[in-house]
Amino acid sequence: MSDLALHNYFRSSTSVRVRAGLNLKGLAYDYVPLSLLKGEHAHAEHMALNPSGLVPTLVTPQGPLPQSLAILEWLDEVHPEPPLLPADAWGRARVRSLAHIVALDIHPLNNLRILKHLEAEYGVDAAGKAAWFRKWAEAGMTALEARLASESETGAFCHGDAVGLADLCLYAQVLNNARFDVDMSAYPTISRIHDNCMNVKVLADAAPANQPDAV
Amino acid sequence: MSDLALHNYFRSSTSVRVRAGLNLKGLAYDYVPLSLLKGEHAHAEHMALNPSGLVPTLVTPQGPLPQSLAILEWLDEVHPEPPLLPADAWGRARVRSLAHIVALDIHPLNNLRILKHLEAEYGVDAAGKAAWFRKWAEAGMTALEARLASESETGAFCHGDAVGLADLCLYAQVLNNARFDVDMSAYPTISRIHDNCMNVKVLADAAPANQPDAV
Repeated sequence: MSDLALHNYFRSSTSVRVRAGLNLKGLAYDYVPLSLLKGEHAHAEHMALNPSGLVPTLVTPQGPLPQSLAILEWLDEVHPEPPLLPADAWGRARVRSLAHIVALDIHPLNNLRILKHLEAEYGVDAAGKAAWFRKWAEAGMTALEARLASESETGAFCHGDAVGLADLCLYAQVLNNARFDVDMSAYPTISRIHDNCMNVKVLADAAPANQPDAV
Repeated sequence: MSDLALHNYFRSSTSVRVRAGLNLKGLAYDYVPLSLLKGEHAHAEHMALNPSGLVPTLVTPQGPLPQSLAILEWLDEVHPEPPLLPADAWGRARVRSLAHIVALDIHPLNNLRILKHLEAEYGVDAAGKAAWFRKWAEAGMTALEARLASESETGAFCHGDAVGLADLCLYAQVLNNARFDVDMSAYPTISRIHDNCMNVKVLADAAPANQPDAV
């Protein structure tokens, strides 16, 4: 039993990010699966940890911590090696601004709760939900690709040659894109970085297919 | 002429956050208005600064920086006083996780581009768009209220008695809620903190009504 427990779902890309961060830091954790399809995230036991009823929540010795980016920033502060953010303030600003293209401009729109609401409220079918997913994924990735391809700090990963916060968001999003047939050919830099991420064992280990609740 | 220029829009709540952060830090900036209604955020001049075509973008001596939360974290690192985040790592984690309820779970869904897409794609009318706005605003605020009302760190503001990152997100969201008739009576703690924010002159100064492009 570890002193960290991650309440999460194998397919959730915000869960992927946090699992990857924990793995990179070499931190063991208890894996607590919550099936979003069965509504387990909205059960009272989980709502007591995270009143948002969203995954992931990291339960720590100091209490429960919801929100994937807040978790990753906290992990980076209390377990600094290897760093998820560069040493210089401008580099940290760049990495956060890249990560936030995925975390704020793409993922919140394409969350399962949104897709379910589109169906329930407007009768959007599976093809329509996939079109919605692609619209916002492509808008964000077009911007992310433009920045990564033009900015000199980009290396094997989003910022130089070490995995960082932006990479965790990027690769989790690309894994998610595959479920909705997003054509990645317009995003060669993102695709290259994604491949580099998947060649890092601890990141591949965090992917949905390798989790105990994967179906 | 300042060495900082904020490309933004008076009504945008992400712009409100950043204006408030700049004001709190006592930093002068040039106000560059971009009318979202006229599509000025998508003009080539702005896309060269921010390929996402979203506001706000802070132009700094080191280059342009998009993404409101990345801007605020950078401002806090390079101009530490007064701090937007507490001194302790767990406190910072708490404040970020509260801020992110607004910044990731509410605002991205209720952005102007989403409301316009709902109308164009599904024929959603003004009442339907307002219902969409309220659904996600209320879901996020229900969680935020539960946390603020139950956690002992809450004070006059989200974390103790000084304005911080979570407050900037909270008050900008509440200002935005008023445009869509969100009933705030279910959120007494949020409402109290919002009132306290509006009594801070530099935060009131950052509100939409007080900007040069306000209509």
